[in-house]
Amino acid sequence: MSRRKIDCHTHIFPSSLPDFKSKFGYGGFIQLRPNDDGSADMIRDDGKFFRRIEPNCWEPELRIREYASKGVQEQIVCTIPVMFSYWAKPQDGAYVARFLNDQLAEQIQPHPNHYHGLGTVPMQSVELAIEEMRYCKEKLGFHGLQIGSNVNQKNLSDPEYFPFWEACEAENMALLIHPWEMMGEADMQKYWLPWLVGMPAETSRAVCSMIFGGVFEKFPKLRVLFAHAGGSFLPTLGRVEHGYHCRPDLVAIDNPRAPSEYLGHFWVDSATHDGRLLDYVLELQGAKRVAFGTDYPFPLGDLELGAFIEERSYSEDVKNDIFSEAALEWLFGTK
Amino acid sequence: MSRRKIDCHTHIFPSSLPDFKSKFGYGGFIQLRPNDDGSADMIRDDGKFFRRIEPNCWEPELRIREYASKGVQEQIVCTIPVMFSYWAKPQDGAYVARFLNDQLAEQIQPHPNHYHGLGTVPMQSVELAIEEMRYCKEKLGFHGLQIGSNVNQKNLSDPEYFPFWEACEAENMALLIHPWEMMGEADMQKYWLPWLVGMPAETSRAVCSMIFGGVFEKFPKLRVLFAHAGGSFLPTLGRVEHGYHCRPDLVAIDNPRAPSEYLGHFWVDSATHDGRLLDYVLELQGAKRVAFGTDYPFPLGDLELGAFIEERSYSEDVKNDIFSEAALEWLFGTK
Repeated sequence: MSRRKIDCHTHIFPSSLPDFKSKFGYGGFIQLRPNDDGSADMIRDDGKFFRRIEPNCWEPELRIREYASKGVQEQIVCTIPVMFSYWAKPQDGAYVARFLNDQLAEQIQPHPNHYHGLGTVPMQSVELAIEEMRYCKEKLGFHGLQIGSNVNQKNLSDPEYFPFWEACEAENMALLIHPWEMMGEADMQKYWLPWLVGMPAETSRAVCSMIFGGVFEKFPKLRVLFAHAGGSFLPTLGRVEHGYHCRPDLVAIDNPRAPSEYLGHFWVDSATHDGRLLDYVLELQGAKRVAFGTDYPFPLGDLELGAFIEERSYSEDVKNDIFSEAALEWLFGTK
Repeated sequence: MSRRKIDCHTHIFPSSLPDFKSKFGYGGFIQLRPNDDGSADMIRDDGKFFRRIEPNCWEPELRIREYASKGVQEQIVCTIPVMFSYWAKPQDGAYVARFLNDQLAEQIQPHPNHYHGLGTVPMQSVELAIEEMRYCKEKLGFHGLQIGSNVNQKNLSDPEYFPFWEACEAENMALLIHPWEMMGEADMQKYWLPWLVGMPAETSRAVCSMIFGGVFEKFPKLRVLFAHAGGSFLPTLGRVEHGYHCRPDLVAIDNPRAPSEYLGHFWVDSATHDGRLLDYVLELQGAKRVAFGTDYPFPLGDLELGAFIEERSYSEDVKNDIFSEAALEWLFGTK
């Protein structure tokens, strides 16, 4: 039996990077250093090691083969969040974004049946972000963007971003919100805690910020998908909802609708790594708002590509919703 | 039908506070300013408002009546985390702790059938913390302590705290770990996000730190209860567990046992504000490790005192475990 499967959350990378530090005259950027064994190291230009990546990070054909071996045909691809570079000077951030978007388009263009691209935009300048969003749509044919859970620690509730949401809504561009620059990172250096504790919190911060800031009210057609099953948002909804009702003076100041009313409005991916939690997520969101997503090709991702979902006793309809319908409705706004 | 009910997570406060700032010669402490309507304001000595509290924060008899009206007989009480004062000079922190512990003992001493006390200790000095722990046990008859999820942003995995865990284990003192000084607080000032997003993350940080730091391995008889149903730890266990297995070089460096092996070893309270999530928590932990707890008397607490638990279709045994057995096993180490 073959089920259409679209992975809504995967990362892809250029096979080489320019020396942004030399070009811009200041540091903080990632460099890519190839190793003899075919892997490459992402290293910040101050020498700090970030991550070793493998060829499945930049070889589209290899990725297609790895996906085929697990029965998945399509990937929605975006850059690695460390490349967002929101901290850089706006024009430089725009330059980095353009480079990444062009590279991504070039990698996936020969394989239209296997790839859908999400662009990256320089959120440190809403004007430049909108410009790059339009470029992604008009010149590269992307149907969406990936942005970070915060912009230099500014929250997505900030009215500064309203014109950006408005433009994305008008241009029918879907958004994947991905955690990055995790809260508490400096104090949690051991045990990978920024990834294991900080990332789920970052995503909840983003969901809460967009809800309480009234973003979904003001831009009701904006289609937003939150990574990692919404992080800790859905499992702490009881607390968040109770907080909204018991302290409206603190929480309900910019939006008079309760958080629970937005269940099934936004999308989340399926990357729970736990069938029991996925049951809970599905109960809250409905299967059309839980899109199969893995975080491939990184080790913290669901590298069995949804095997744990197939093992659940969900109906075929529910599985089809998770594996393709949810992503199609999110990315294209229609089946 | 009357079921024995013990609330394992409630806060109590002195009816007045000394002027710690004048006494110690530096600021940062909480002052209590009474209002005409019977409430009182907790205000930092730099003038920053923290929280308005009501007489049920400091009147033991009033609390007993409020609990009785909802069919609950017993409360395990501890101070409000903002009073931990770990940031103060060690001797001053010890002074504050002693004041709070003596006050708490005085409040509950006339009502031994209704109250069990948890002390607070100056974690900025392990030596003084152990001293105060012994005072709480020997002089005040407390069976446990409440400590924060971090100590001045240092994690509970730090070997500095090993002698403290060892002493608590030896003295049979139970521990409630409560979130405070929340990660990301400075960047999440709107919408109460430190409470709604930061606190669940803080608690997960504490659970992960104690697991990955090997605390439960080194001190296997230490009985630890994490507030707010363990925060975001249990719902993100799939991610945490996967992280442990896929990057042991980062995560399994100080303890070679997987996080899931500790399910049912520690305790959590029941404050999920959501029956569906409580189902999930019970599935992971077992009912003897999920203790009825409310965060009373604060608005973000479960102020219906477990009504949502009674409404679930759990067996009588499960409900009895949640409402009393779990807390008894945690606090006394036995039924």
